[in-house]
Amino acid sequence: MMMDAMKNLYIDTGRLVAELHELAAFSSCPEPTPAVTRVVYSDEDRAARQWFDGLFRDAGLSVRVDPIGNTFARWCPDGCDADAPAVGSGSHIDAIPHAGMYDGTVGVLGALEAVRALQRAGHRAKRPIDVVLFTSEEPTRFGLGCTGSRAMAGQLPADRLALLTDDAGDSLDAVRRRAGYDGDLAGVRLSDDAYAAFVELHIEQGPKLEEEGLDLGRVFAIAAPSTINFVVTGQGGHAGAVLMPDRHDALCAAAEMIHAIEQLCRSSPSPDCVATVGTMDIHPHAVNSIPSRVAFSLDLRDIDGVNRDGVCEAIVGENQRIAARRHVQVEHSVLNADPPADCDGPIVEALAEAADAGGYTHRGMVSRAYHDSLFMASRFPTAMLFIPCRGGVSHRPDEFAEPRHLEAGVATLARTLATLSGS
Amino acid sequence: MMMDAMKNLYIDTGRLVAELHELAAFSSCPEPTPAVTRVVYSDEDRAARQWFDGLFRDAGLSVRVDPIGNTFARWCPDGCDADAPAVGSGSHIDAIPHAGMYDGTVGVLGALEAVRALQRAGHRAKRPIDVVLFTSEEPTRFGLGCTGSRAMAGQLPADRLALLTDDAGDSLDAVRRRAGYDGDLAGVRLSDDAYAAFVELHIEQGPKLEEEGLDLGRVFAIAAPSTINFVVTGQGGHAGAVLMPDRHDALCAAAEMIHAIEQLCRSSPSPDCVATVGTMDIHPHAVNSIPSRVAFSLDLRDIDGVNRDGVCEAIVGENQRIAARRHVQVEHSVLNADPPADCDGPIVEALAEAADAGGYTHRGMVSRAYHDSLFMASRFPTAMLFIPCRGGVSHRPDEFAEPRHLEAGVATLARTLATLSGS
Repeated sequence: MMMDAMKNLYIDTGRLVAELHELAAFSSCPEPTPAVTRVVYSDEDRAARQWFDGLFRDAGLSVRVDPIGNTFARWCPDGCDADAPAVGSGSHIDAIPHAGMYDGTVGVLGALEAVRALQRAGHRAKRPIDVVLFTSEEPTRFGLGCTGSRAMAGQLPADRLALLTDDAGDSLDAVRRRAGYDGDLAGVRLSDDAYAAFVELHIEQGPKLEEEGLDLGRVFAIAAPSTINFVVTGQGGHAGAVLMPDRHDALCAAAEMIHAIEQLCRSSPSPDCVATVGTMDIHPHAVNSIPSRVAFSLDLRDIDGVNRDGVCEAIVGENQRIAARRHVQVEHSVLNADPPADCDGPIVEALAEAADAGGYTHRGMVSRAYHDSLFMASRFPTAMLFIPCRGGVSHRPDEFAEPRHLEAGVATLARTLATLSGS
Repeated sequence: MMMDAMKNLYIDTGRLVAELHELAAFSSCPEPTPAVTRVVYSDEDRAARQWFDGLFRDAGLSVRVDPIGNTFARWCPDGCDADAPAVGSGSHIDAIPHAGMYDGTVGVLGALEAVRALQRAGHRAKRPIDVVLFTSEEPTRFGLGCTGSRAMAGQLPADRLALLTDDAGDSLDAVRRRAGYDGDLAGVRLSDDAYAAFVELHIEQGPKLEEEGLDLGRVFAIAAPSTINFVVTGQGGHAGAVLMPDRHDALCAAAEMIHAIEQLCRSSPSPDCVATVGTMDIHPHAVNSIPSRVAFSLDLRDIDGVNRDGVCEAIVGENQRIAARRHVQVEHSVLNADPPADCDGPIVEALAEAADAGGYTHRGMVSRAYHDSLFMASRFPTAMLFIPCRGGVSHRPDEFAEPRHLEAGVATLARTLATLSGS
């Protein structure tokens, strides 16, 4: 029924691409764009949010910012029931060090362009449409991914949220206040009737769509992520003076553990299980000193949450055996172990219909990367829409999505938002 | 003949211990003493040198400082031939991050106390005695150990010395100028007749003397140190999206290399061969990003230089095989590969006689740690004198030498300097 207005749907892809480039320039990365670093609450993040504020207001959207900076830009035209549960679409704009310019940003600027397209097409929304900008999806600063959406979904209590700490030892509560956000952190949690539906547009961050020559992916499930921190404590000493049999080198032990993690993950029954050790801190970190303490992070994911937990258990056990054999200590702490999420069937179906209406090819798929949608899905009917990215590459400066795929994604998102907000 | 004056030899051990504690307070380590961090040319290093300047002048020594801060505090009493090759004794005062308060410092303050003791005992030196403070023995700042002594020995040409670079990208030449040192770097090289003999007092940094209940070690050889930097380049990507078989994780490759280094070193024919990976830098260093580049250092030493070079070759070959199998690249650069040094027989013998004269127990031994003496030995007759340290521990805050061993070391050093300067 909404398809009548949708005949006039026009996506301003040129403007969207230009905005993606403008956004990329808010970066602290020493390399030029497309390399991007945008850490939550940094000067660059704050400047980017201010820039967004202008875009939202230019589109006639009313902006609400919650106590940690999650931003809701609402379109509620004449005839729209302002009190009805809204339809939401959005993603994040923070970027890990030396990342690219499409991860997350496509979902926020794409949702904005979808709303502008609906406005131009004369869509008559019966419920509000929110463009959502989530705070701190990346774990870069506070060690925990999806901070904003976790708290919105009620899965991160206000006291734990306040005490998340960055490497400088500053609490999230202190940092957000310095960044200009205040108010009771308990207010971040959304009410049960906040959203009737939520859809996130995102680059695939994997190679499947490109390999199969498809325009779009309908995400029907999101993998279960888990983050575990390990600390290995051995015995330091002078690199010249302690003979090899007398050593309890924390880095040699950690190296053996990292090798074991790789092997245990590769040999797990689930082909979708992935394990990544991305950070490592060595003490005292001197060329001529035996490492006495090594801390490293493990990012472990699987579509099958039970398999993931089994692999995690096997890794912890093997690391303890390696430590015992080497007479070093190992401790671990589970930062998060989230369950996988099933997406909402009717929304996934709406995505299929919208893709067909635009003449785009598509397939159903799972997201192995996790997203704010993982947490939105725990409270509200949720799905995701993927577009291809070159070589499946993400979290790197050469991350790239073609304009025609951006257009396919935004057009399909717009049609889906029209359907979801039309009744 | 010198032993007459030596009957009156008195070591002020209490003052020496107090001075070691005063020196430890010149530290940028966030932890209190005995934890010490003193990086060359830092504010703490410069303040410590100023403090030394006062001590030297109080002892009536004339101070010469060379263009990179190597400091020579000379005692040339009446009857001493100011033009004769001198007798030198000294060590370094820079300390790696989170180190202890005895490594190096005992050799500088000990030499000063030895000279003060000789003055009190009425020793009539026939040639000058220099207390030497070497600049930048630790490789912490410029990546290369024994910068000062290398250059003094003529093994580090002025142009290469000038261009050594710290992590901030600043050249040694620029940094030394900011620290107040200038003059032609070619002037650091000592003339052939600078020293008739050189002796360095040092803590053992190993457990042998303590285990055998001995007071002193006469060092007759110094192990050959080598430093090699490796850079592994793989492929980055999102931790969630790239399946295990598709990965070329630089850290997983580096972990396997570190394990191989440990095994190759342990299985080498020489029991004295030691290998240490002490530093590692991971790019991009994010929890949810596959490492694309890992750089790590290898410190490799052996008393047997030929065996060390063989192990090094085996490590380089094995790392290349690991890299090829994983479809990543590895590059290496040899920062230094110094030959081992034999100490001077007559000086080692003089140490034995001096130890016997004081009633101290002692043994001959090799130094597995390297020291400025390694480079002094390439130009001048040189030996070292070791005192025990608790548990063989060094480069850690719990590094400790007992006052009675400090006294044994300084008394024996003083008697040796008396012998060497008496004719």
